[in-house]
Amino acid sequence: MSGVTTTTQQITLAQRPTGLPDDSTWSLDTVELPDPEDGQFLVRIDHISLDPAMRGWLNDVRSYVPPVQIGAVMRAGATGRVVTSRHPDFAEGDAVTGTFGVTEYAISDGTGVSRIDLDVADAPTWLGALGMPGITAYFGLTDVGELHEGDTVVISAAAGAVGSVAGQIAKARGCRVIGIAGGPEKTAWLREIGFDEAIDYKNENVFKRLRAVAPDGIDIYFDNVGGDILDAALANLRRGARVVICGAISQYNAESLPPGPSRYMSLLVFRARMQGFVVFDYEDRYPEAIDAIGAMITEGSLQARETVVDGGVAAFGDTLLGLFRGDNTGKLVLRVD
Amino acid sequence: MSGVTTTTQQITLAQRPTGLPDDSTWSLDTVELPDPEDGQFLVRIDHISLDPAMRGWLNDVRSYVPPVQIGAVMRAGATGRVVTSRHPDFAEGDAVTGTFGVTEYAISDGTGVSRIDLDVADAPTWLGALGMPGITAYFGLTDVGELHEGDTVVISAAAGAVGSVAGQIAKARGCRVIGIAGGPEKTAWLREIGFDEAIDYKNENVFKRLRAVAPDGIDIYFDNVGGDILDAALANLRRGARVVICGAISQYNAESLPPGPSRYMSLLVFRARMQGFVVFDYEDRYPEAIDAIGAMITEGSLQARETVVDGGVAAFGDTLLGLFRGDNTGKLVLRVD
Repeated sequence: MSGVTTTTQQITLAQRPTGLPDDSTWSLDTVELPDPEDGQFLVRIDHISLDPAMRGWLNDVRSYVPPVQIGAVMRAGATGRVVTSRHPDFAEGDAVTGTFGVTEYAISDGTGVSRIDLDVADAPTWLGALGMPGITAYFGLTDVGELHEGDTVVISAAAGAVGSVAGQIAKARGCRVIGIAGGPEKTAWLREIGFDEAIDYKNENVFKRLRAVAPDGIDIYFDNVGGDILDAALANLRRGARVVICGAISQYNAESLPPGPSRYMSLLVFRARMQGFVVFDYEDRYPEAIDAIGAMITEGSLQARETVVDGGVAAFGDTLLGLFRGDNTGKLVLRVD
Repeated sequence: MSGVTTTTQQITLAQRPTGLPDDSTWSLDTVELPDPEDGQFLVRIDHISLDPAMRGWLNDVRSYVPPVQIGAVMRAGATGRVVTSRHPDFAEGDAVTGTFGVTEYAISDGTGVSRIDLDVADAPTWLGALGMPGITAYFGLTDVGELHEGDTVVISAAAGAVGSVAGQIAKARGCRVIGIAGGPEKTAWLREIGFDEAIDYKNENVFKRLRAVAPDGIDIYFDNVGGDILDAALANLRRGARVVICGAISQYNAESLPPGPSRYMSLLVFRARMQGFVVFDYEDRYPEAIDAIGAMITEGSLQARETVVDGGVAAFGDTLLGLFRGDNTGKLVLRVD
């Protein structure tokens, strides 16, 4: 293969968006990748992960990861197959997952790349329940939230990639689980996968419904959305509650910093804490989460669901907007042919 | 003394305020107290504590203590001397502290009342550094904030009753301590009592000054004020920081719920937590705090300061307004003659 190049389409960041990304945010480029060098391998991508956190990576601010640079390939988790390898740990044909970016092919040195077992689950699930979202749900609940049997657990964006796994883990650990999601289809699905209650924030008053279904208060609120729903939860805590700050999808596209949670003094009234975390800090313990979630999938106590969109890397921009509209149920994945 | 009554002036709640309390909030009543019954004693009050938390007690909402009822004596900590006693644990002449209310005399059954040693410190100090404010500072820092030697600790309302004790405890435990207060007199005093840095929020940009004096970030932010200063601190945290929510004096008189901390997502970026507490939960451990602070006073490593206002219970309403204007340095106390 020496001297052979591989043609790939990829999405690069053309300019930083204000508010929602649009066509001017992205550039669809066709480039030639060189043959892998010693210690590298070439991957053909089959599925790309779409994550709310991507919006934050576009802002030129100090955060838990550096922003994506203008002209760089858009950062994204993905799954694929090794095409050619000069790396000792990866062989041609291996199914792998890693942060390969929004691209059809990628050259990797193996950093942050893992082999995946497609007998346990299909590739999209390795980007969802068995990928970052599932691992995030696991450590957010068990570690940051200090999940205990019997807790009343409330989860926002509960029909999303993280929330749907978090709810099923809490349920399996003997908790009462209340999900908040947008629209009757999503809430119906939450009940189907075992949530005790499901609140449709588009058609119900979340504050009142929380008070009704959790009259003794919330032990863990796992927040993926921020905004009014965070306030509604804060006003309904139980003493000693843990508010896990996993994300704030309602705020990511705001053009100026939105007001914070007015009800934060509930933390004092209820002797509660609100704590943020970043899943990357748990890298050493990923296998623990993957084993636990994998076992639940195998034994049938966890339903992994993905919304898979066709169209290849060219469809990335539109598909990402769907994520912020809440089009997806479960993990949103872009298929690359 | 059987059949003898005691005439006392006291402040009762006439109506709940919207915004700042005013004359219509309070009623100054003269009542006759009966002779103490078996298991009771009569106290002559000499000093009354004024606390920011009082404003919250006036609102008819569920909180960590029930609201003061219309017509009831205003709740307040106080010190005094036992005049007559039919209680086995308290004798005539004992110096005591308890939640006696804004009154000249009170009948007590001893609940929540402690004897105080005026050889250790004068009565006003028993309402300040050796009272609820000092105990609040102690547990807020050591327990909620998990104070460690070498931490960078930032304290708002640092020249107040709680903040000034918190800062001196942190300093004694080997921390770098930065205080935020209003006006050059207060910041000068903070430097005098050992704060490493003092920021005057009335004349300086708190965000920029925090970035300058704590370039590596804040380990503990002990918040007594809320509002913009809380946001400035959140934006300057260090990884793993603890934000201790002790109070929010900037918000207590707001006529509608003010916006919360816009920068709360810093909790995620910095893997930090924000936690509220109520000192009453530590009642079993009050002696630990009082012993520690008392020892610091005795050895000279803690300066207890009070602003003592004359005028008796009739001056309560005006004196409380001074608290919200920030008139006091150290603990604000009303003397009752």
